[in-house]
Amino acid sequence: MKKMQLGKAFTLLEPGPVVFITTNDGKKNNIMTISWTMVVDFTPVFALTTGPWNYSYTALRKSKECVIAIPTVDMIDQIVGVGTCSGADTDKFGKFGLTPVKGKHVRPPLIKECLANIECKVIDIVKKHNIVVLEGVAAYFDSSRKEQRILHAVGDGTFVVDGRRLSRRKMMQSKLPEKV
Amino acid sequence: MKKMQLGKAFTLLEPGPVVFITTNDGKKNNIMTISWTMVVDFTPVFALTTGPWNYSYTALRKSKECVIAIPTVDMIDQIVGVGTCSGADTDKFGKFGLTPVKGKHVRPPLIKECLANIECKVIDIVKKHNIVVLEGVAAYFDSSRKEQRILHAVGDGTFVVDGRRLSRRKMMQSKLPEKV
Repeated sequence: MKKMQLGKAFTLLEPGPVVFITTNDGKKNNIMTISWTMVVDFTPVFALTTGPWNYSYTALRKSKECVIAIPTVDMIDQIVGVGTCSGADTDKFGKFGLTPVKGKHVRPPLIKECLANIECKVIDIVKKHNIVVLEGVAAYFDSSRKEQRILHAVGDGTFVVDGRRLSRRKMMQSKLPEKV
Repeated sequence: MKKMQLGKAFTLLEPGPVVFITTNDGKKNNIMTISWTMVVDFTPVFALTTGPWNYSYTALRKSKECVIAIPTVDMIDQIVGVGTCSGADTDKFGKFGLTPVKGKHVRPPLIKECLANIECKVIDIVKKHNIVVLEGVAAYFDSSRKEQRILHAVGDGTFVVDGRRLSRRKMMQSKLPEKV
């Protein structure tokens, strides 16, 4: 897993993947699966929606840190498994064969098996809407990985796999930030 | 275009499509292209990120209404075209051959050529982060359309097309809202 230019990290979330969020409550690591995320700025800033009903929320709110880890299609059963049990009674890293890797800026771990990881600081929580605002402080990408297709959750129990990629870079040149 | 159950409308945004947002400033209709959206609740509530740098923002802020319209892969050049010119000096419906259709609850129009449309009310603007919070009040889906594959913007001028769909409905049954 190599460092990725921070100015490109928003491109990991912009296509709308289902992702893992790792947290650490001071005692142990945990993971949740979510799809409710959005890019808020190129710098990068991200938002996600979660709340008190979610076991990871307390760790996120108190520690103000997390890692966004991006899994690929071959990890679908880990994605669904992590999303359908609770960190209250489960060591999800152990149960789903995921390997925590120490980050540089935050205590929650990167996930070794994932295509990409973004270390994040919580910069705000908009309580009224359960929106957590994150600033990415370091990003990593595993370019040696053969499988790079991400998964998009539909929300009805089905997932769509990345298909072909079309380029309109020329038409969009005026709109792209400098670093991408 | 037929009415879609409102409780299912979040599944239109959850997979992370690039979308059109239509607005009306009291004088004319406009359209913008965005990818920075997120589901905030099943009811449905959505968030999007935009701000004063965007011509549509004033109409969105003043009228407190918009339509989220979901285009498909065959509309890629309309998506990029709408996203790379401004409503300040362009009639985007005319220029890109898109047909406005009157909605029932809001003044901004649905887009006839799109796969789905969601009429929305702006329920809040979190100015600090340029996050606009929307409540969906009616949704429509064109099931007669042959092309139903949506596009995911990567943010670097490339777009990923929907590939195959995998189901994990059985594993996820406990987590799915009643209506999907």
